[in-house]
Amino acid sequence: MYSNQKHHKQHITKDGIPVDIEQIRKLFIMPESPDKFHEFGNELLDMIHKFFTEKGGIHSSILLPELAKIFSNIDIPENPHRLKDVLYEIKTKIIAHSVKVGNPYYIGHMTSAIPYFMILLEMIIAALNQNQVKIESAKASTFVEKELLAWMHRIIFRRSTKFYKANIQNKDIALGNLTLDGTMANLTALLTARNLAFGPHGRFPGIREAGIAEAYKYYGVDRAVILVSKRGHYSIDKVGRTIGLGNQNVIKIPVDSKNKIDIIKLEKTCRELEETGLNGGPKTKIIAIVGIAGTTETGNIDNLKEIRKIATQYNAFFHVDAAWGGSLLLSDEYRYLFSGIEKADSVTVDAHKLMYAPPSLGMVFFRNGTELRALQHYSNYIIRPDSVDLGRFSVEGSRPFAALKPWATLKIFGKEGFKLIFDYAFELTSVLRGLVEMHCNFEAMNQPELFIFNYRFVPKYVQEQLNKLMSRIQNEDFKDDRNQFIKMEYLNRVEKINLLLNDLNTELHKAIREEDDSFVSRTMIDAPQYFYQDCVVLRAITINPLTTPEILKEIIEQQNKLGLKIYKNYFQSRFEKI
Amino acid sequence: MYSNQKHHKQHITKDGIPVDIEQIRKLFIMPESPDKFHEFGNELLDMIHKFFTEKGGIHSSILLPELAKIFSNIDIPENPHRLKDVLYEIKTKIIAHSVKVGNPYYIGHMTSAIPYFMILLEMIIAALNQNQVKIESAKASTFVEKELLAWMHRIIFRRSTKFYKANIQNKDIALGNLTLDGTMANLTALLTARNLAFGPHGRFPGIREAGIAEAYKYYGVDRAVILVSKRGHYSIDKVGRTIGLGNQNVIKIPVDSKNKIDIIKLEKTCRELEETGLNGGPKTKIIAIVGIAGTTETGNIDNLKEIRKIATQYNAFFHVDAAWGGSLLLSDEYRYLFSGIEKADSVTVDAHKLMYAPPSLGMVFFRNGTELRALQHYSNYIIRPDSVDLGRFSVEGSRPFAALKPWATLKIFGKEGFKLIFDYAFELTSVLRGLVEMHCNFEAMNQPELFIFNYRFVPKYVQEQLNKLMSRIQNEDFKDDRNQFIKMEYLNRVEKINLLLNDLNTELHKAIREEDDSFVSRTMIDAPQYFYQDCVVLRAITINPLTTPEILKEIIEQQNKLGLKIYKNYFQSRFEKI
Repeated sequence: MYSNQKHHKQHITKDGIPVDIEQIRKLFIMPESPDKFHEFGNELLDMIHKFFTEKGGIHSSILLPELAKIFSNIDIPENPHRLKDVLYEIKTKIIAHSVKVGNPYYIGHMTSAIPYFMILLEMIIAALNQNQVKIESAKASTFVEKELLAWMHRIIFRRSTKFYKANIQNKDIALGNLTLDGTMANLTALLTARNLAFGPHGRFPGIREAGIAEAYKYYGVDRAVILVSKRGHYSIDKVGRTIGLGNQNVIKIPVDSKNKIDIIKLEKTCRELEETGLNGGPKTKIIAIVGIAGTTETGNIDNLKEIRKIATQYNAFFHVDAAWGGSLLLSDEYRYLFSGIEKADSVTVDAHKLMYAPPSLGMVFFRNGTELRALQHYSNYIIRPDSVDLGRFSVEGSRPFAALKPWATLKIFGKEGFKLIFDYAFELTSVLRGLVEMHCNFEAMNQPELFIFNYRFVPKYVQEQLNKLMSRIQNEDFKDDRNQFIKMEYLNRVEKINLLLNDLNTELHKAIREEDDSFVSRTMIDAPQYFYQDCVVLRAITINPLTTPEILKEIIEQQNKLGLKIYKNYFQSRFEKI
Repeated sequence: MYSNQKHHKQHITKDGIPVDIEQIRKLFIMPESPDKFHEFGNELLDMIHKFFTEKGGIHSSILLPELAKIFSNIDIPENPHRLKDVLYEIKTKIIAHSVKVGNPYYIGHMTSAIPYFMILLEMIIAALNQNQVKIESAKASTFVEKELLAWMHRIIFRRSTKFYKANIQNKDIALGNLTLDGTMANLTALLTARNLAFGPHGRFPGIREAGIAEAYKYYGVDRAVILVSKRGHYSIDKVGRTIGLGNQNVIKIPVDSKNKIDIIKLEKTCRELEETGLNGGPKTKIIAIVGIAGTTETGNIDNLKEIRKIATQYNAFFHVDAAWGGSLLLSDEYRYLFSGIEKADSVTVDAHKLMYAPPSLGMVFFRNGTELRALQHYSNYIIRPDSVDLGRFSVEGSRPFAALKPWATLKIFGKEGFKLIFDYAFELTSVLRGLVEMHCNFEAMNQPELFIFNYRFVPKYVQEQLNKLMSRIQNEDFKDDRNQFIKMEYLNRVEKINLLLNDLNTELHKAIREEDDSFVSRTMIDAPQYFYQDCVVLRAITINPLTTPEILKEIIEQQNKLGLKIYKNYFQSRFEKI
């Protein structure tokens, strides 16, 4: 098949580009002279700089159907295009219509600004093109990843100096894994828990070999469950389905008024599951209990110490989903919030959240470093048993050298730098909470612990009605039947007001999106203060170091204006009828 | 908690860096002036350029224990470090000891050179910081991803123009998913197959709700299996374990002499599983049959047409793992190799392999675009049912805007450009195969289809012995008992020679690694030509457009020299004794 002729014959596209292997080859690393690389690099640096300093809307004003039309070409390009033309296309079609998540007025999601050096680190990662699955394509990067894992493990579990010295680069110990995201980190932890719960025993080769159905039979179990509070991230359900347990075996425990798992109810559920089995009912194995630090919707941290006790009592694996909050352990000052996390069996932390890496990079850590042997696997051409290949212990296969980002960030910021960032984020949350609580047209909807604050627009008049009703419900004596009827009537009115407030806040959120000067997200939570009625709330996450108290004030003022306008035009008379 | 005082108080580290929120803030996008950004960017572009143009070893000469020592600091830095100091550290400690996978002499793994524009694309992806899970943090990028998925879907499934026009941006259709890697792509496909096999039915809520054990009970099934050839990637086993089936239910079908699944044996296995169930034995549900295009170790493509027929007959989902080869469909010329792939239910393709993206980026495609509803899920604060959020259909959660890389590459190369790359890679494979087959000291060990060529060092003298024995075994008449004994004797000697050749080639591979001028990988395959005896082989993957026929010649010559030296010093007398 080889012929010199073949790849020296060339034709020219109508745009004048030679179609020729030599031409393609030039695009592969590295140009003889670095000029071309610099030229494009600089152009791009300008383009990126402009995107971030540009004023204007957060989401770009284009409507989704129009945007869809731009990207509806069903034909793959036949001929090569010039790099500069494609970069121009990216600039005008993609960058122009991207979401400015780094904008200090964007306070709606866990994605915010990233330090600009992340861009430099991504350049290095791409250029090195290492694949972490095996040492043969990831030499220094294998060791960097292990060093990072040990660092993070240490702030979570605080094992002895001796422990880390012995294990930081121990090839047979996996202190954790880097994963694509928090979902995969939770999957890794709970899959490990599942495998440990039904390991090899006697003549049974273990769940990995035999599968779930056989494992249940051998262990005399009818069902295996994971327990988590109803504020658990949706990835826990996803994992439950993926690893074969099913939704109905991810049991949701109610929360207390602070959105933390109700410890009494957790213990009661465990006891009932056990008693049912002892009394001849279905036998249940509690694979794992998941604690949250903090919850995605409200930012609260479960009582991890108490969960640990219950997990131990029922011989369950204790996993903490600290995807959101875990990074705060970098600062000793906030450690008290996570009390008990050091006794967990595994912990998830996302680097793309409070470590400010671009999406996405999950991390999962295991207390002893031996737990992941429950996932260990080999192959002939890579990840041989005697190797140092990281791929021996991971659910995923090929992986980028993403470890460089948090590793370098920890050096550049230092623990001190992270403390400053977290101090500042706490301040911003306090400021926002203060603004909302002092304002006559807003209502605070949670007690924020970790930078997530929920609130809603409730015009003064409505708030007065609501307060009046609530104070009557709480203070009046409803003992006799007649009064019971009155209480029902009050509750009924509260419910109606909340339903209408849901509509009002949904409309307000749409208006904020249309105005596009700022962004908060919207969610629905069953508010403990309103007898767990589902309430639509605005959700603000104040972690961008470029956001200021003044900006928060502007945002609330704008929301107030929009809210009042919508209220007067469409809602006032409806509220007055309740 | 808010106090202006607090974050204006600052101290200075002993390196003279102010520890102050203002200082940290400056590191977040964007500097007022782009100068700083350019300065670092250019320094980095130089650093990267130098890494690639530098002469010297592929793996760097440092020993692993020494390298481990460099990254054995168990303390997270307390204080901030200057960016330029950290970049210097990266340069001297990491870049210097990274594997030069882009070197044209590195022909050992599926990782090779990347086009330099990938670095520019990564800069854009990081800077935009979009999170693909939801439109609120990924506006244009959501549509780019869908356009890319439709493009790739079309070259695989070749559905009608009408189909693509209707579905390219249809929010309720998921033509596929981008995933971290091929493992996650295979997981997504086989999880979908599992869920479809045990869907909701009558009063049964489906496997997602009830879990595997209940699903088996309701469907009257004792086991559920996946069938794949013994050349299947190890990720198929991993997936089988993860989704709850267990290793023993990932059934490995033998291969023919060309390393393709043995269709007769596949059909026989299916029939036997069915008959066992009908005859009162365990009832088995065949969830999926997996075809490979091509195999990781030998690059061969299964007979997909025939697998399709069997899958249809046994009502099994038909998944094709084309992680390695699928991108070749970009060129019509090579489509004939994949005949039948267009009838698959799902197909995996890796963009970090033959689409030359940096690791890692898997893709999985579904024929109808409705299959992924078997994974669909919602959440209150994102991925609402009426949204266009990509996160509704993915196993993973947060994901980067990685779609930009293959999307832009398809424009820059065009289908024509990819054809040139593949033509050239085929040439290189032919050249290498020719070099090996013509050489008196090497033996070709597979018939390469997709750029993967296995061979081993077999000195002329040994080769002659081996050929003599093999020709006797094949040609002589071994009917009577006496001759049977002689045949056993011959086979015994072949086995001994192969065992010693395994040691010799393992030593040779170590020597190649130590020399470090070039790199091939090493694996063990059960060679059909030697009655499926396990043979250690050298594995070359010739996909780097910068590799040349001359380079391949140099590599073989060097291996010959090393091989002869090792043979003479340590093996010659041992071979002569056999």
